[in-house]
Amino acid sequence: MMDINNAIESLDWSKEPKGLYEPIGYTLASGGKRIRPTLAMIASALFGGKEEEVLPAALALEVFHNFTLLHDDVMDRAEVRRGRPTVHVKWNDNTAILSGDQMLIEAYKLLSKVPADKLPQVLQWFNDMATGICEGQQYDVDFEQMKEVSIADYMKMIELKTSVLLAYALKIGGYIAGASPSQQEALYQFGLHIGLAFQIQDDILDVYGDPKTFGKAIGGDICCNKKTFILLTAFEKADAASKEELQKWLLVSDQNQEKIAAVTALYDRLGVRAAGEAAMEEHTALALAQLDTLPQNEATAQLRSLAERLATRKK
Amino acid sequence: MMDINNAIESLDWSKEPKGLYEPIGYTLASGGKRIRPTLAMIASALFGGKEEEVLPAALALEVFHNFTLLHDDVMDRAEVRRGRPTVHVKWNDNTAILSGDQMLIEAYKLLSKVPADKLPQVLQWFNDMATGICEGQQYDVDFEQMKEVSIADYMKMIELKTSVLLAYALKIGGYIAGASPSQQEALYQFGLHIGLAFQIQDDILDVYGDPKTFGKAIGGDICCNKKTFILLTAFEKADAASKEELQKWLLVSDQNQEKIAAVTALYDRLGVRAAGEAAMEEHTALALAQLDTLPQNEATAQLRSLAERLATRKK
Repeated sequence: MMDINNAIESLDWSKEPKGLYEPIGYTLASGGKRIRPTLAMIASALFGGKEEEVLPAALALEVFHNFTLLHDDVMDRAEVRRGRPTVHVKWNDNTAILSGDQMLIEAYKLLSKVPADKLPQVLQWFNDMATGICEGQQYDVDFEQMKEVSIADYMKMIELKTSVLLAYALKIGGYIAGASPSQQEALYQFGLHIGLAFQIQDDILDVYGDPKTFGKAIGGDICCNKKTFILLTAFEKADAASKEELQKWLLVSDQNQEKIAAVTALYDRLGVRAAGEAAMEEHTALALAQLDTLPQNEATAQLRSLAERLATRKK
Repeated sequence: MMDINNAIESLDWSKEPKGLYEPIGYTLASGGKRIRPTLAMIASALFGGKEEEVLPAALALEVFHNFTLLHDDVMDRAEVRRGRPTVHVKWNDNTAILSGDQMLIEAYKLLSKVPADKLPQVLQWFNDMATGICEGQQYDVDFEQMKEVSIADYMKMIELKTSVLLAYALKIGGYIAGASPSQQEALYQFGLHIGLAFQIQDDILDVYGDPKTFGKAIGGDICCNKKTFILLTAFEKADAASKEELQKWLLVSDQNQEKIAAVTALYDRLGVRAAGEAAMEEHTALALAQLDTLPQNEATAQLRSLAERLATRKK
């Protein structure tokens, strides 16, 4: 399979006005796993699709994903992304807003190169995907202000915020290569479940990851009271006394190391790690089961290996 | 012709999450002249197009235009738009960014309903239009920091920032209704020139408008040293002494009434009003000349009347 990184690097951002295009090139050059375009390419390969036919959509998905990171970083006031200053820090907020807008338009420019007979359907799905991401982001913001969030609400949020982009990447890749509607649906469900498994694993690693391999500080979600699968499960499993203790720690903001240790101990007592791992493994299994309904070839093997790697990753 | 306002009002924004969609409904309900969708509808009518075939593109253009206003207001820190608090004031910056992003996606959702055989071309033009607007916005920002801006650079900027949206509204409307390539180009040029005439007239009215009818305070551009057609023409026409006087006033920021009076007197001496009116009339004439190459019917008469109204407007 062609190197998706080369294809991304060959996009030209040396255009005028520089103030608009340089931050786009900067954002796209910062690396990342390129998981979304890779999924689209694998899904296409699974049905013997031509690489040049799926590539525009694959690139559109990656540019779109990086657009969401750019605007999210402004909204979250994040200062570092992949080890480099974020666009609003290196330039300013207005540049991040406007170059982000252009990046979203650039995604649609790439998408417009999808084979004409496939374009109406792909554009519709791409729009549904993009809408899901914005809705997921809004729910995430809303949850910060809400006292009680159910695990079901949380799963719906991460489905929108993380999973639909993976799911549509696979579905669009398969569709362009000629997958049948039921095969498209299997790809979609595979993406949905690996996305959910990925996010739950992320929530587990924030508490139980090895600081040497995780790459981020452990306990970041605990410090800022982020409503993760782990915290929400703890609330669900806790008796009145444990709930009270947890609530007490949520009000603490100036003793982070002590807070992380105490909340982790509480998590240990409640057995939320096992609950998280069970949920993660359930979604991985649901994803893998979808693959059984698809043609078995090298691409299917790649998807299987990807799902298994996600489930056992340490970072 | 159908009432475009009704069509805009019938778009449903009562969806969840409310934090995402309410600001979109609020923005679209704030009125405005609906000039862009109207141009698309007239261009379609000119070629006997079916209203329901052009309507999705017409609505997409209006939603897109309002998206640009929403994000521009954040970037300009504008507090009032059409007599109401802007979204970032009524809600907050993050809401304005995220709801704006969704609004841009909503424009593409509407666009996806364009007849499938016309969609690839319309999507490409829509993307070119959207890119032009972002580039124009960036040049406008760049010009604020530049010491010297030529009138040619300024015209290029307002062409991108204002005219291409009008031009593509007409071209897309005509194309969907079956206009030939040369007719599409005539519509495009008509839109380009009425846009330029409109912006130059705006620059003139800021100095010479009647405060009773203009709706905004007179001299706003003078106070903030905005590089308008009028200011750039003044620099071009000024001798060394006048140039020095003008430079001196640009450094003044605390005596606005005195500054407006002095700069206006300088403009009077240099005859920039007449130069502005000549340029405005030239672009109006160039626009009207395009209409001669098109079928002559009620729609052509509407475009003619619109161009003439723009050239003689007082607000």
